[in-house]
Amino acid sequence: MSYRTANNGELRIAHVSNKVTLCGWVQKTRNLGGMTFVDLRDRYGITQLVFNMDSDEELCVKARGLGREYVIKIEGIVVSRSSVNKLIPTGEIEIEVNSLVILNASKTPPFTIEDETDGGDDLRMEYRYLDLRRRPVQDNIILRSDVAFYTRNFLKKNGFLEIETPVLIKSTPEGARDFVVPSRLNLGEFYALPQSPQTFKQLLMVSGYDKYYQIVKCFRDEDFRADRQPEFTQIDCEMAFVKTEDILHIFEHLIKEILFKTKGIKINKVPRMTYQQAIKDYGTDKPDLRFEMKVKDLNIVCKGKGFKVFDSAESILGIVVPGGVGFSRKQIDKLTDWVKRPQIGASGLIYCKFNNDSAYKSSVDKFFTLTDLEQWKQVSSANDGDMLLIIAGEEQLTINAIGNLRLEVANQLNLRDPNKFAPVWITDFPLFELDKTTGNYHAMHHPFTSPNEEDMELLNTDPELVRANAYDMALNGTEIGGGSIRIHDKDLQKKVFNILGFTDEEAQEKFGFLMKAFEYGAPPHGGIAFGLDRICAVISGSDSIRDFIAFPKNNSGRDVMLNAPSKIDNTQLDELGLNLD
Amino acid sequence: MSYRTANNGELRIAHVSNKVTLCGWVQKTRNLGGMTFVDLRDRYGITQLVFNMDSDEELCVKARGLGREYVIKIEGIVVSRSSVNKLIPTGEIEIEVNSLVILNASKTPPFTIEDETDGGDDLRMEYRYLDLRRRPVQDNIILRSDVAFYTRNFLKKNGFLEIETPVLIKSTPEGARDFVVPSRLNLGEFYALPQSPQTFKQLLMVSGYDKYYQIVKCFRDEDFRADRQPEFTQIDCEMAFVKTEDILHIFEHLIKEILFKTKGIKINKVPRMTYQQAIKDYGTDKPDLRFEMKVKDLNIVCKGKGFKVFDSAESILGIVVPGGVGFSRKQIDKLTDWVKRPQIGASGLIYCKFNNDSAYKSSVDKFFTLTDLEQWKQVSSANDGDMLLIIAGEEQLTINAIGNLRLEVANQLNLRDPNKFAPVWITDFPLFELDKTTGNYHAMHHPFTSPNEEDMELLNTDPELVRANAYDMALNGTEIGGGSIRIHDKDLQKKVFNILGFTDEEAQEKFGFLMKAFEYGAPPHGGIAFGLDRICAVISGSDSIRDFIAFPKNNSGRDVMLNAPSKIDNTQLDELGLNLD
Repeated sequence: MSYRTANNGELRIAHVSNKVTLCGWVQKTRNLGGMTFVDLRDRYGITQLVFNMDSDEELCVKARGLGREYVIKIEGIVVSRSSVNKLIPTGEIEIEVNSLVILNASKTPPFTIEDETDGGDDLRMEYRYLDLRRRPVQDNIILRSDVAFYTRNFLKKNGFLEIETPVLIKSTPEGARDFVVPSRLNLGEFYALPQSPQTFKQLLMVSGYDKYYQIVKCFRDEDFRADRQPEFTQIDCEMAFVKTEDILHIFEHLIKEILFKTKGIKINKVPRMTYQQAIKDYGTDKPDLRFEMKVKDLNIVCKGKGFKVFDSAESILGIVVPGGVGFSRKQIDKLTDWVKRPQIGASGLIYCKFNNDSAYKSSVDKFFTLTDLEQWKQVSSANDGDMLLIIAGEEQLTINAIGNLRLEVANQLNLRDPNKFAPVWITDFPLFELDKTTGNYHAMHHPFTSPNEEDMELLNTDPELVRANAYDMALNGTEIGGGSIRIHDKDLQKKVFNILGFTDEEAQEKFGFLMKAFEYGAPPHGGIAFGLDRICAVISGSDSIRDFIAFPKNNSGRDVMLNAPSKIDNTQLDELGLNLD
Repeated sequence: MSYRTANNGELRIAHVSNKVTLCGWVQKTRNLGGMTFVDLRDRYGITQLVFNMDSDEELCVKARGLGREYVIKIEGIVVSRSSVNKLIPTGEIEIEVNSLVILNASKTPPFTIEDETDGGDDLRMEYRYLDLRRRPVQDNIILRSDVAFYTRNFLKKNGFLEIETPVLIKSTPEGARDFVVPSRLNLGEFYALPQSPQTFKQLLMVSGYDKYYQIVKCFRDEDFRADRQPEFTQIDCEMAFVKTEDILHIFEHLIKEILFKTKGIKINKVPRMTYQQAIKDYGTDKPDLRFEMKVKDLNIVCKGKGFKVFDSAESILGIVVPGGVGFSRKQIDKLTDWVKRPQIGASGLIYCKFNNDSAYKSSVDKFFTLTDLEQWKQVSSANDGDMLLIIAGEEQLTINAIGNLRLEVANQLNLRDPNKFAPVWITDFPLFELDKTTGNYHAMHHPFTSPNEEDMELLNTDPELVRANAYDMALNGTEIGGGSIRIHDKDLQKKVFNILGFTDEEAQEKFGFLMKAFEYGAPPHGGIAFGLDRICAVISGSDSIRDFIAFPKNNSGRDVMLNAPSKIDNTQLDELGLNLD
């Protein structure tokens, strides 16, 4: 005999008079005169059970004794319901119960298992298995399962092979953020956990696998900012004999497929934007394109009028707040405080309201005439009724600040519609970042990224101007993936290592096996990796990847449910040849 | 411009006169008079290129300079071939090349990239990226990708959710084989890598996910026998509100689907056999059912005739070798040596040939009359022309030895047909193993396995007789998966812990969070885990899982390509608060 003949989400009016067996958790019980109603829950839905004092007193009393989250099994008859509940798919029926078995009792949960719970963050993490029962959390976990499934189906259809790469790999000298794993069989030696399968997927291209993918755990031992986890999951892909165009083509379709399958959203074509353009228009390389409000360069019209803040600034940038004249003094003060927070770091915020009656009002009226402000209006393409917000200062900081202000204002104006999706490819990233203090070059993506062929000469003269064959996909203001065409020529690779300041020995020590592999016929290749946790968060309009991980860790890297990490005993340390400081 | 318009496996006679661009690796070049032929290879196949001294000398000379494993790109016209190669699907065409670009040169590989290579095991592991180019290895990797894909599709179709569980978990006091991971953020504390997601999948059932699966890496730090790896992959599944029957039903279909999709093999019904029956008839709990040759109990007919080996034996078991009278003295001696090896540990092997002329011949003729031997023949159901092989001694050792001998003889007689597949469910395992020396009970599967309801009373009186709700699937003599219905009642769980000798504190320390979760409405649940590496090996008729792992480790747990594990530098040790002994 099976435990159940149906789940709690599937019975409809068509099933009336069927005899059914159901199992699930008691969501709640209500007594109404001589009747007792029980909402029975499982992941498929809720079905109402009804017990009647008149027809079976003993059974009804038993039902009245059920506590929240008891696990029960019932048998009964499907009947149509007098007061239909239109909020749930099973709302037209209920079950007249004639047998009730308590499969397991439950202590009263420490918080309510409801969409809106009374449990705080810490409590819910400690009892994660109960938090996971709540519908919004289940929706997240199910979404993640779906995204992974659609991804795999899409990639299989496009000829990709799923190939697993090792989790126990080699620690590299610069692997400062590597988790390491002492080996019992090789005392004094350690494996490392991969920060990504980058070198393995490149080896697989050397091996001729042509199209590889893997949905794979990656690891990073670092201070966890609000939205980082020590273990996270990548959709990791690589292809041989491809150029940028081939990669963008395939993976644009992947994202379109995911958005369509999970959200019913149809995207026609993912627009492309160079890194330079993105920085210029949006103050970020991951622009949110659900709304306009482009960044305006105000250097020409703001300088030379005696206002010191502007005159001494490397950069003066503004955004136009549509209908912004309505912002109160208080609202503007709050925005000013917001941009002055250390995370943003601007020195202040200047506004100019373009009132309909041409009585323009700015916070720097002392320095600028109405004609000056009229110029501001023209250069920033503002309309009557709009407000211009300006930040000035050191270039990089100002770009960053105005980009963030743009998002904050959009949040306040509800311009970031959670049901709208605006992916964009960002291309032509710089290959190197120049560290101005040390004069050293760093790889903007990673040291295997190939330079744009047109910029090869610049490698010798102005490395900081070399564009990379690298691309990111941003969705609604979040980077969800990125990749590049790799270097497959060992001489070019050596040159890039030189610019990055690696000695031959260092390059050998770090990437020796990859360099060696490249001597045996490496094909041109490139790839991309998407953050699975991140994709799920973005398409759900959530800020936090943690909500999409079944058993996440907190900001200190702890699993508070398991109490991990934890001490290990001395025997185990001895066996590993380790002492604690 | 794309790198290619076709791959090397897809061009046919219908494509003749098409202009194509191909990329790939040079498998070999042959000069024939004024012509040069190049076999161009990628993972899709091989296409023949042809160059002609008469029509383009420069190009042909360039082709003659190509070394093995060079990566090239060519343009040319598809033409029909005068001497058709029936061994390859592209064998009716070749490409008249008019442009050749060398994308990358290659050093001469240290071994030949052929189905049968001249490279030894160590060399191929060091250059694994080249070994992975060989067709038989690629077939394995592609099979694995397919098995994973079919598995996921099947489970999705059956309502399973894919849910990822953490890799960084809690180390448990008895986790002697746990890999541990020091935490930088929590100095002196360690995570452990999971030997399986067992407790997490049970928590997911408590959380109401109903049907869970994951294809997941598991880790075990132990001496690696020939066919073990420190990291291996499980198809891990769990279901709520199920009994054994529900699990066997679903997962029998999974295995049938995998065998059908990968091998075209149709299995009607997977037979079932109790553990006891399997041990009795096959001397093992993972019988190879592709052939009969059942184990015969010869105790009654062998004892009491003055042959000490038999008279003092706990157990006397035999198998009948069909047509075995043809075995030479030398063959029998070799088998005798084989069973005396330490891995088998039998003290010797006794034979009896039942010749057609009733001139039976045994190695113990001194002790047994022709009538005795006639009895042996009857009890063992041997026919004229067969040979009976007998092993006697301590019970467990003898069972094990005869089971192994059965497989070895079948190997010699080619009875283990690699194109035949005989899955079988083994059920009713004992719940506990009794350690005869210490008198302690150990869990045969794991401590969460539920006892058979019929045997509940025996828990109090004779734990060793209690049958578990546990099941394994064996395929062709290999265990490919196993699982159980779990205990969901905390009192029963406590009782089992007691029998296993755990104090309440130990149980709390080890499984506290699971026990706690069980207090909040745990549903009845059960599951199974299959070894993905193992399934691939068995359906390919291979003995070694290593052949189905892209980057495996050797018997010392080393990746010789990466040279991992390796030393880490002192800065890193300091940051982790660790000293080496």
